[in-house]
Amino acid sequence: MDTIDELLANNRAFAEPLADRHLDVEPSRRLAIVTCMDSRLDVFVALGLGDGEAHVLRNAGGIVTDDTIRSLAISQRKLGTREVMLIHHTDCGMEKITDDGFRAELEEAAGAAPEFPIGAFADTDDAVRESVHRVRTSPFIPHRDVVRGFVYDVDTHRLREVAVA
Amino acid sequence: MDTIDELLANNRAFAEPLADRHLDVEPSRRLAIVTCMDSRLDVFVALGLGDGEAHVLRNAGGIVTDDTIRSLAISQRKLGTREVMLIHHTDCGMEKITDDGFRAELEEAAGAAPEFPIGAFADTDDAVRESVHRVRTSPFIPHRDVVRGFVYDVDTHRLREVAVA
Repeated sequence: MDTIDELLANNRAFAEPLADRHLDVEPSRRLAIVTCMDSRLDVFVALGLGDGEAHVLRNAGGIVTDDTIRSLAISQRKLGTREVMLIHHTDCGMEKITDDGFRAELEEAAGAAPEFPIGAFADTDDAVRESVHRVRTSPFIPHRDVVRGFVYDVDTHRLREVAVA
Repeated sequence: MDTIDELLANNRAFAEPLADRHLDVEPSRRLAIVTCMDSRLDVFVALGLGDGEAHVLRNAGGIVTDDTIRSLAISQRKLGTREVMLIHHTDCGMEKITDDGFRAELEEAAGAAPEFPIGAFADTDDAVRESVHRVRTSPFIPHRDVVRGFVYDVDTHRLREVAVA
């Protein structure tokens, strides 16, 4: 069985015994979490997060891009969230590439350079601080009092807060 | 205790009894999943996904934006994934706004309109097809043979595949 079909079978087995139930579209903890797409980061389990409690945004690196700002603006303005938790992690793929190198690779493959930034970073703590800064300075996001940044250790499963000025 | 501190306490309790273990940065199922930030969509549980198996990308709507293309390009070119699973869901916040309305709201709040697209949609199946199309036509993404689109029902927890031409 191929991978996606196997996951669909998992989903049927998961859903089958459950009773239907409706939870509100607005997250009950009024929180949005921004983190990396990394496969070792199951935020629901690692944070003891329940269904319906928080928005979860994920991309390569867990960096704050235009798309993150778009999503946070919708999260806060339309769906009631008030706090932001940013989580980068150890052993991230974004530390293993450079903006110029990856941009050149894409240009060679596609015949034209992408218009989007790559978002590579060399220092994880600095990347967390930059992400916190981007949220705190965005005029599109109304609630910027509680914006905290963390690094998740994929080996120990522990979160460490990054001091931000 | 405030919300984020409570989640940090949850994380300490979760990590404490676990032995350290290192999983590879490359997802073992060679799969990337793109879905919405919605709080009722715990993809690890709903798909029976284990740690280290798949990249998980999430934003408002689960739509394919430039940031999604960036992340998928890194996922496939640097971290070995080969297949893409796109999951939208019922009762999505993106059906409740319009591009023009939300853009005007942001412009009024910030004094200038955002440069990013909003990504509202009226029909979820059409939005899934559009997302599949964007991945399949991106020259930055090398593996586009297996790109399948789904709708997750947040009440029944079931996935339904969307037929794509």
